[in-house]
Amino acid sequence: MMVKHTLDKKRNVHFNPDNIDVLANEGANLLEEAIRAGVHIAASCGGAGVCGTCKVLIESGKVASNRTAQISADEYQQGIRQACQSRIITDLSVHVPLESRLGTSVVSSEKNKSATDILANNWKLNPPIRKCYVELPPATLDDNVCDFSRLVRALKQQYHCDNIDIDFDVLKDLPLVLRKKDWRATATCLARIDRDRTRISSPTVIKIEPGDTSHRLYSLALDIGTTTVCGQLLDLTRGQVIAEGIAYNKQIECGSDVITRIAYSQKPGGLRSLQQAVVTTINEINHELSRQSGVSTRNIEHVTAAGNTIMTHILFGLDPKFIRLAPYTPSACFIPPVKAGSLGIKVGRHAYLFAIPAVASYVGGDIVSGVVGTGMHQRKALTLYMDIGTNGEIVIGNSDWMVTASCSAGPAFEGGGIKHGIIATEGAIETFAIDPLSYEPEFGTIGRARPKGICGSGLINIVAGLLEAGVVSRDGQFQTNIATRRIRQGSDGLEYVLAWAPDTQIGRDIVITEIDIDNLTRAKAAMYAGCRTLSESVGVNSLDFEQVIIAGNFGSSLNIEKAITVGLLPDIPRDRFLFVGNGSLLGARLSSFSADRLDDALRVAGMMTNFELSENADFMNNYTAALFLPHTDINEFPTVSNKLARLPRTE
Amino acid sequence: MMVKHTLDKKRNVHFNPDNIDVLANEGANLLEEAIRAGVHIAASCGGAGVCGTCKVLIESGKVASNRTAQISADEYQQGIRQACQSRIITDLSVHVPLESRLGTSVVSSEKNKSATDILANNWKLNPPIRKCYVELPPATLDDNVCDFSRLVRALKQQYHCDNIDIDFDVLKDLPLVLRKKDWRATATCLARIDRDRTRISSPTVIKIEPGDTSHRLYSLALDIGTTTVCGQLLDLTRGQVIAEGIAYNKQIECGSDVITRIAYSQKPGGLRSLQQAVVTTINEINHELSRQSGVSTRNIEHVTAAGNTIMTHILFGLDPKFIRLAPYTPSACFIPPVKAGSLGIKVGRHAYLFAIPAVASYVGGDIVSGVVGTGMHQRKALTLYMDIGTNGEIVIGNSDWMVTASCSAGPAFEGGGIKHGIIATEGAIETFAIDPLSYEPEFGTIGRARPKGICGSGLINIVAGLLEAGVVSRDGQFQTNIATRRIRQGSDGLEYVLAWAPDTQIGRDIVITEIDIDNLTRAKAAMYAGCRTLSESVGVNSLDFEQVIIAGNFGSSLNIEKAITVGLLPDIPRDRFLFVGNGSLLGARLSSFSADRLDDALRVAGMMTNFELSENADFMNNYTAALFLPHTDINEFPTVSNKLARLPRTE
Repeated sequence: MMVKHTLDKKRNVHFNPDNIDVLANEGANLLEEAIRAGVHIAASCGGAGVCGTCKVLIESGKVASNRTAQISADEYQQGIRQACQSRIITDLSVHVPLESRLGTSVVSSEKNKSATDILANNWKLNPPIRKCYVELPPATLDDNVCDFSRLVRALKQQYHCDNIDIDFDVLKDLPLVLRKKDWRATATCLARIDRDRTRISSPTVIKIEPGDTSHRLYSLALDIGTTTVCGQLLDLTRGQVIAEGIAYNKQIECGSDVITRIAYSQKPGGLRSLQQAVVTTINEINHELSRQSGVSTRNIEHVTAAGNTIMTHILFGLDPKFIRLAPYTPSACFIPPVKAGSLGIKVGRHAYLFAIPAVASYVGGDIVSGVVGTGMHQRKALTLYMDIGTNGEIVIGNSDWMVTASCSAGPAFEGGGIKHGIIATEGAIETFAIDPLSYEPEFGTIGRARPKGICGSGLINIVAGLLEAGVVSRDGQFQTNIATRRIRQGSDGLEYVLAWAPDTQIGRDIVITEIDIDNLTRAKAAMYAGCRTLSESVGVNSLDFEQVIIAGNFGSSLNIEKAITVGLLPDIPRDRFLFVGNGSLLGARLSSFSADRLDDALRVAGMMTNFELSENADFMNNYTAALFLPHTDINEFPTVSNKLARLPRTE
Repeated sequence: MMVKHTLDKKRNVHFNPDNIDVLANEGANLLEEAIRAGVHIAASCGGAGVCGTCKVLIESGKVASNRTAQISADEYQQGIRQACQSRIITDLSVHVPLESRLGTSVVSSEKNKSATDILANNWKLNPPIRKCYVELPPATLDDNVCDFSRLVRALKQQYHCDNIDIDFDVLKDLPLVLRKKDWRATATCLARIDRDRTRISSPTVIKIEPGDTSHRLYSLALDIGTTTVCGQLLDLTRGQVIAEGIAYNKQIECGSDVITRIAYSQKPGGLRSLQQAVVTTINEINHELSRQSGVSTRNIEHVTAAGNTIMTHILFGLDPKFIRLAPYTPSACFIPPVKAGSLGIKVGRHAYLFAIPAVASYVGGDIVSGVVGTGMHQRKALTLYMDIGTNGEIVIGNSDWMVTASCSAGPAFEGGGIKHGIIATEGAIETFAIDPLSYEPEFGTIGRARPKGICGSGLINIVAGLLEAGVVSRDGQFQTNIATRRIRQGSDGLEYVLAWAPDTQIGRDIVITEIDIDNLTRAKAAMYAGCRTLSESVGVNSLDFEQVIIAGNFGSSLNIEKAITVGLLPDIPRDRFLFVGNGSLLGARLSSFSADRLDDALRVAGMMTNFELSENADFMNNYTAALFLPHTDINEFPTVSNKLARLPRTE
């Protein structure tokens, strides 16, 4: 028996600039109708009304919508509303502004601008490399100091730096470069720059170019994940991301998690193969960034990488052997910078690779990067930071203290181990709604392309939708008594057909299986149990958190509401949640933009206390209890309990 | 008509441990008789009595000898005398102690111990690298910090160092090495070590070895000359030279002086060929040092090299192009240390190469090294420092000021451009005497081997001897009216036969030609004129010098007396001269033994004022005036004038 959506007055809603019309019920939610119509609107918080990314302009017609804190008085006056907070009253013409649309670029930072703006605001553009243009007096018989001394003299005078060193390779080019444009040249200096930005102390000249190239200064920020590698090309002169890319880590062929990767590294030539695999992945992303931006890879002057301890070891070619053996010691948590080219990364030959430091074998630079990127270390507010990925990581604390734990969630959140799971690229099913009468699905894909698979956030949205519609039970099983041809017996057991073969890019039905649901359930249970166990260890409960920062490589957004529905996130007030997308990448980016953040990362890595969960009995209990949707104890999820209570009982 | 050596009483002199007897005239000089007998005794000062290297023990018999400052009362009591200061009175039995004998090793440092002891005494063994043995607490679950942090913790505790960094390559080995001998290991730290030797500041761990290897710490000191390359293997734990080697710089095939080398470097691939040539030379010497000492080249942890600016540029692969073009600017006077292996030098792969800094294009690190090695920069005494070689260099000054100049002398001093000139190796004719009646030569060779050629010091001794005997006139021509078959017309003009083919290693007559004498004359004239011009520029004359330090790569010694005879050195009191052998190598060695000396070298390079001689009219005048033996104005050389006045007039 249906309770929602009585079939009453139909209203026409026209979406611009897509020029799409949809017939909707009066009173229906504008965001949901847009999704149904295939109009892509970003909604980072999943329709909770807290993120403000789904702002639209009501060009004509009327909606019922409260003005929230995300809409300024001016905006409200202009007709701007949050789609998720608006009910359709009359026929409408709705304009979806560019910033609210899901674009084709797939890394989430820019779409989550509001969340990162809230969090990552306490920094100044102050990169660890800087370009110094100098005009030198030409050498004469009366002033024939060596070329390097002439350069040093000018840098001292014009940029007030001292203790200037030079990379040996630069010396080779120096004489010709200085003379090429009449003693005008630009020195790229790698340095710790003082906060007041008036002095560079102890810089090393790592590149010299003829003429003035100071307008051109690029950095590559990388998140090296077990499953996926994300990269951003940064313009350090403006503090902007100018291109983004993502790819599966080619190491996947050698094992899906860090433990199998370590095992592989111990085979003859294994470490070298793994290193080459990730370097190849990076180079492919780099090539894509170059294609998007038109910036030659050899003009990349600096690289910052964040990754878990195993990924970082392998990237640098360090043997991760002892990470797997008790007592689990890494070779080094802080790895000295090396020339990126020496590892095979195709950037400027002078560019150094900086790795964000780690805490321990299973608390890597990725989590340190996320903490530093979101500024959690700068605030007094008690914060829960969750990095949801193959290797899940949790931090609790504030500017004074931090505890951390990690748990292996498996690759489901990144589309791994899922029958039609794919990386968050064009054609990945990301948003999902289900018609409560017909059980027909409606979904949106990244890039509005025909579907080719399901990305991590899509998987959560689909399972939540199926659960809320009663298609899937709380133990993750399909309800076969529902009258829909979408549920059927497949080669891997029961499955629900999301898209029929002719409508897909892959020419096969795209389905979600019970095994997929089980994989997601175990993944979310590990995250939830890790979070709960760590909270209990320090005597806090989920309601104590003033801020919950969610990071993860889900594609454009994680729907917070749906993530609570499946039991991944605790059921607490939605306005405490902030989704920052790829937190590891965010920290790497800010460390490229601001030398201070790299210092912060070293400090934060030193202040974190690691809790080992792998042999913790409480963790195992919490994990088992969480192997239901949303949890064996439904009272832990009161709002989900309410939602599900409205379902017709189907037994 | 003969005036010297009346044929009176003959005395038998027996030399131990060589077991050689010689019949000598009563009253004859003991050193000269030893040379005549082929008994090798070091005499750095050439018999002037000031160096003390020719000490012998009179086992029986009597000599007439004054006690000089070089002989202590105890030594005098034991019967120790300076051979050069002793006249033969009765039959003698003479023991030549090991330290007074010319060995087969050919670099002069050890034989000139007294001279370097006098000069280079104000330093402490305080190498820029140090081995730190640590015993680490094994990793446990309660203490599982990363391996690098564990090492750092121990270094801080046991050696009180801070700001510890690690070479990336060492990280790769670290986990296995630490565990190999139960967490006992030795870290090689490259650091600036404070003078009080209780703290190492900001060291970088460049090597890690299992167990305690702190007894083993070797450095390679190099002098990279235009003509010859010299190397010493140093034991840094004891501050001792343990092996020495010398070889012609293989770049000679590409030109004999720095200008032709620069020209060659501008050909396609030329710079690379030159670099490979000198690296091959270094590796051959290194192989020889390893053979002598039994120390594997891969256990060499550190390299210090001194050379002129062009040689240093080429060694590092820096283009010397602009050194030759006005206004003559080097790429860099201070080159940052690089891994020696990256240039192809076969030492430990972690070893860094440090180059002694230069002053200008034609005042190189070799001269700075010599100044610092001899401690000239530490004393108030007005000092003349002359480095006699292919590229002659002159410094005048003291601890407060220094002026310097360079002049191209050509390779004659190193056996180059001389018909039978060879490097100072076994079989090189080094000492020379001539029978005043028969004009038959008597000579000593390095290693007492059969002769195969003439080294630089031999050339000076031969020309001086021929001049003193009247065989050669002051304009460098053979006196053909002398009744000796030794003077003859050869393929290159007139020549004097030093050794007949059957007595040589080469199976050909070894001769000295008028062209050879002319080459030496031009070389010594350049040095003398440079010295004179620079002195005049600062208003001092040769008698003002309180100390004259002579450096040069002459083989075992330079005979000061003979060098004055040919007009290479000014005719001033002999006790002001100190011959230090290869000064450039001395400074490189001391910079390996003491980190402070490398600091000093940077400071000294900064305080030197360079005088350009190449277009100086005074220099040309002084040069032309010096193109006689010893000089066109014989009054500049009063003691030589006296000697030559005793010659019978042969016209």
